[in-house]
Amino acid sequence: MTYHAPTDDLRFVLEKVVDYPAVSATSRFADAGAETTAAILEEAGRIASEVISPTRRESDLVPARLENGVVRSAPALKTAYDAVAVGGWVGLSAAPEHGGMGLPQTLNIAVSEMLAAGSLPIQVKVLLSQGQIEALEHHASDALKALYLPKLNSGEWSGTMNLTEPQAGSDVGALTTQAVDNGDGTWAVTGQKIYISWGDSDLVENVCHLVLARTPGAPKGTRGISLFMVPKIIPNSDGSLGAANTLRTLSLEHKLGLHGSPTAVMSFEGATGWLVGEELGGMAAMFTMMNNARLGVGAQGIGVAEAAYQQAAAYARDRKQGAAPGLGTIIEHADVKRMLGQMKAEIFAARSIALACAVSTDMAVATGDPSWGARAAFLTPIAKSYGTEVGWRVADQGVQIHGGMGYIEETGAAQLLRDVRVTQIYEGTNGIQAIDLVGRKLADGGDAAFRLIDEIEATCELARSTQSALGEAVWSAAETLRETTEWMLEAEMNDRLAGASDYLAGFARCLGGWFHLKAALEDPQCDALARLFGTRVLPFAEAHCGLARAGGADLAAMTNDDFA
Amino acid sequence: MTYHAPTDDLRFVLEKVVDYPAVSATSRFADAGAETTAAILEEAGRIASEVISPTRRESDLVPARLENGVVRSAPALKTAYDAVAVGGWVGLSAAPEHGGMGLPQTLNIAVSEMLAAGSLPIQVKVLLSQGQIEALEHHASDALKALYLPKLNSGEWSGTMNLTEPQAGSDVGALTTQAVDNGDGTWAVTGQKIYISWGDSDLVENVCHLVLARTPGAPKGTRGISLFMVPKIIPNSDGSLGAANTLRTLSLEHKLGLHGSPTAVMSFEGATGWLVGEELGGMAAMFTMMNNARLGVGAQGIGVAEAAYQQAAAYARDRKQGAAPGLGTIIEHADVKRMLGQMKAEIFAARSIALACAVSTDMAVATGDPSWGARAAFLTPIAKSYGTEVGWRVADQGVQIHGGMGYIEETGAAQLLRDVRVTQIYEGTNGIQAIDLVGRKLADGGDAAFRLIDEIEATCELARSTQSALGEAVWSAAETLRETTEWMLEAEMNDRLAGASDYLAGFARCLGGWFHLKAALEDPQCDALARLFGTRVLPFAEAHCGLARAGGADLAAMTNDDFA
Repeated sequence: MTYHAPTDDLRFVLEKVVDYPAVSATSRFADAGAETTAAILEEAGRIASEVISPTRRESDLVPARLENGVVRSAPALKTAYDAVAVGGWVGLSAAPEHGGMGLPQTLNIAVSEMLAAGSLPIQVKVLLSQGQIEALEHHASDALKALYLPKLNSGEWSGTMNLTEPQAGSDVGALTTQAVDNGDGTWAVTGQKIYISWGDSDLVENVCHLVLARTPGAPKGTRGISLFMVPKIIPNSDGSLGAANTLRTLSLEHKLGLHGSPTAVMSFEGATGWLVGEELGGMAAMFTMMNNARLGVGAQGIGVAEAAYQQAAAYARDRKQGAAPGLGTIIEHADVKRMLGQMKAEIFAARSIALACAVSTDMAVATGDPSWGARAAFLTPIAKSYGTEVGWRVADQGVQIHGGMGYIEETGAAQLLRDVRVTQIYEGTNGIQAIDLVGRKLADGGDAAFRLIDEIEATCELARSTQSALGEAVWSAAETLRETTEWMLEAEMNDRLAGASDYLAGFARCLGGWFHLKAALEDPQCDALARLFGTRVLPFAEAHCGLARAGGADLAAMTNDDFA
Repeated sequence: MTYHAPTDDLRFVLEKVVDYPAVSATSRFADAGAETTAAILEEAGRIASEVISPTRRESDLVPARLENGVVRSAPALKTAYDAVAVGGWVGLSAAPEHGGMGLPQTLNIAVSEMLAAGSLPIQVKVLLSQGQIEALEHHASDALKALYLPKLNSGEWSGTMNLTEPQAGSDVGALTTQAVDNGDGTWAVTGQKIYISWGDSDLVENVCHLVLARTPGAPKGTRGISLFMVPKIIPNSDGSLGAANTLRTLSLEHKLGLHGSPTAVMSFEGATGWLVGEELGGMAAMFTMMNNARLGVGAQGIGVAEAAYQQAAAYARDRKQGAAPGLGTIIEHADVKRMLGQMKAEIFAARSIALACAVSTDMAVATGDPSWGARAAFLTPIAKSYGTEVGWRVADQGVQIHGGMGYIEETGAAQLLRDVRVTQIYEGTNGIQAIDLVGRKLADGGDAAFRLIDEIEATCELARSTQSALGEAVWSAAETLRETTEWMLEAEMNDRLAGASDYLAGFARCLGGWFHLKAALEDPQCDALARLFGTRVLPFAEAHCGLARAGGADLAAMTNDDFA
């Protein structure tokens, strides 16, 4: 079935739930008012549903392949990628100086969700270029910016992130790729990188690799890492293409899903690279890429969830089954309706969290107020982790609602499940997100967390007369979250880490309750879904917070031999 | 990595947790004492790990295919199937009169778990034959028994279940396949059936289809259904093979997983069939097959979970990553250990539930006491649903622990995930299991449920001095379950159904707590895992019970248009 872009839902969340009007009220984003927003969402939605979504199944069946060292993209993706590139969507929130549209990240995240719903492989490609653009904007020299950004923004070239090595995945500091100064402003980069999404591509003229590497004499660990731009084809100073660089695609992985997106093993063999930012400043530059990408990956999960939900809902409305009187189609079965309701309610929650995170990013840029930056940083791991978890669970329930048909590949429900699975792994596994949340993101003494909790409770106060039941439930969850946050701040690091994933899970569900409450206060039509979330999802916020406070004693009591 | 059959764990659960000695103490199963049990488990475990498990990946890569109307099995499976057939494992718990070994169903379920861990496609084939054997033993004429049972028990022939039609899945009563009396003791069966696992097979000499069909003038719905034996090749009365029957394999499905098991669309074209049981008695016979198969499917989930857990644990013990002092391999990360701990704890719970269900079945057979039969019936949907849910979640966590490698097919973790997904769908979706639990299985006024809850609380009493913390937690969960059961019994059917899946989820976790408590009381070495279950899984029993009592008002408030 065709994906129908949820532009009305997105606009409602933007305008009524996450206070996007505050973004367009700033002078920085004065061009991004209601009219522009509506036009952007409509056009992106049209491309996602009419041009991109029809390629989804074909790029799964006929994936990218490596032919004589060159990656041949899934043929179905050419039209889809061209539509994105020509429309200027890659540079949607990039700086206008180098060809970007300068629009808010919030709009970009809304658009990303729809592109990902259309085709995850395409959105992966766009996301990687966007991360690279942001890293270059923040850290590269003016010369590099002038040379690369216009081509990246136009989609003529695309970007990759080269972090992982066989022995260095989540532990980036263990990488061994070397960069040696050539003495002419360039570096010779040598090493092997794995899991490089779109490591090569014939959809673009050039592939620009941002590569993390170690310079001679650099300290061990993450402090010894620098970032390099290593293009597949070395551009001349006018942007025209010069000689091929000494790098190769060694192989492509056979993956569970995301077949349209080639995942490469890359070999850099004294390849010519340019330092991006300071020597030894690689981690900072990487986190710029990463934070952008993490929120984008959250949006990917939500996009796939929306596509899976739409397909399952259409099937349930259409599929006749059940002999009991009054049962027309399977949506009338309470258990099917329960699944659909939970799916829809959690998509709303995850979408609101991701867009609220993006709003914070934009407000930080527009106002320079560090509390917005802190909020964006705090919400990023939650948006990534919960967005991708919802993507996975909704796609899974989508398969279940289809019954036996869900297990058949032709239906398409299974592909969504296979595709979205990787989002919980890449750009930092969800476990890494949770560690980030209880470690780095609570390092402010809980300021960002408590400020959110205060706002949640303020909304509950407002809801006292008109939404008392849900308001009280959210209040109670927020109070539990406050106690859990206090517990976290006082706990030994090992106890924190033992509860990290549950703390994130509890926080996400509490935020979800808050956003549903806001929606219900704004519009009575949101009342039923908000109630459903309060009844069927919010109780798990309390349960997860309980586990978050359990400490690590029970884990410490298990020895490695217990797992032998 | 190689699957290591968990024979010690299985024996511990049998002997110390689910009171299997009571089964072997009956005269009916006097031959199935500790020594026999140990020998059976060892030998089945050896075959599962050494012969069957090595075929797992190959049968995924080179699946069954349809060639000129004949199914060619995945080549890798021939050795595996032959080992099972020659070992007599198909007829393990079948009646000795016709070549079965007459051993308890409990042993068969333990063996089934290991075979499924080795290769789910092989266990599917065995399970279907076993369901057919049981249906024939209970319902077929002596002539049919004498003709078919020896060949099915020996594995020379195999069985299928033909229920589903395009418009009749969970709603079996809607089927339209026709059977017309030929007047010579045979019937002419005409219709199309879908999702027929192992609908054709060249691993056996003959494929025996049990087909649900409607006879002329039969009432609508499930009361109008009869069961027929329709063999692929019509056997002569001496068991030798005669003429080919008029039935065909039309096509095979392209599935998410379980590639080694061909899933066929079957066409019966006036095929010669023999009535099994009474005319219009098809549903009763079907439930005989189904109940056996449902418990077996639960065991499938547990087997795949065990295989996925072992692979993830081995990877986590081996994989070096993380710069923090003291971190050798990733198992030292609290979040990884948490995942492994939950996986192991839930496998123990699901295994205990399945084996307790099987013990009840055996005790019902051995003693004739209807309360054992009621317990078996009550536990069956829980064992099926929770066993397959654990299979899914553990396989999913197994992928996650592998990080990026988990998404690569060569690793094998993704295959386990793909394979096990179907277990939540077939033999009655897990939603259907939940409806069965709150409907038919509570129709005794809650007798079976309350008797279980009483026993749980009695164990908690015993645990007061030595396991007070876990004992109290389980007691509290049991009390919540009691209140929830009382609520269910008084609730309108629609409110029951809205809470059905959560009631099942809560019941399963409470049972899991009980069995962990029993294990900890028996053996101090089980203490740590039991504590972990109490800390990290049992709280969700309370949360699910809360949802079970939520009623259906929030669902009723959502109209079909809300899902448009």
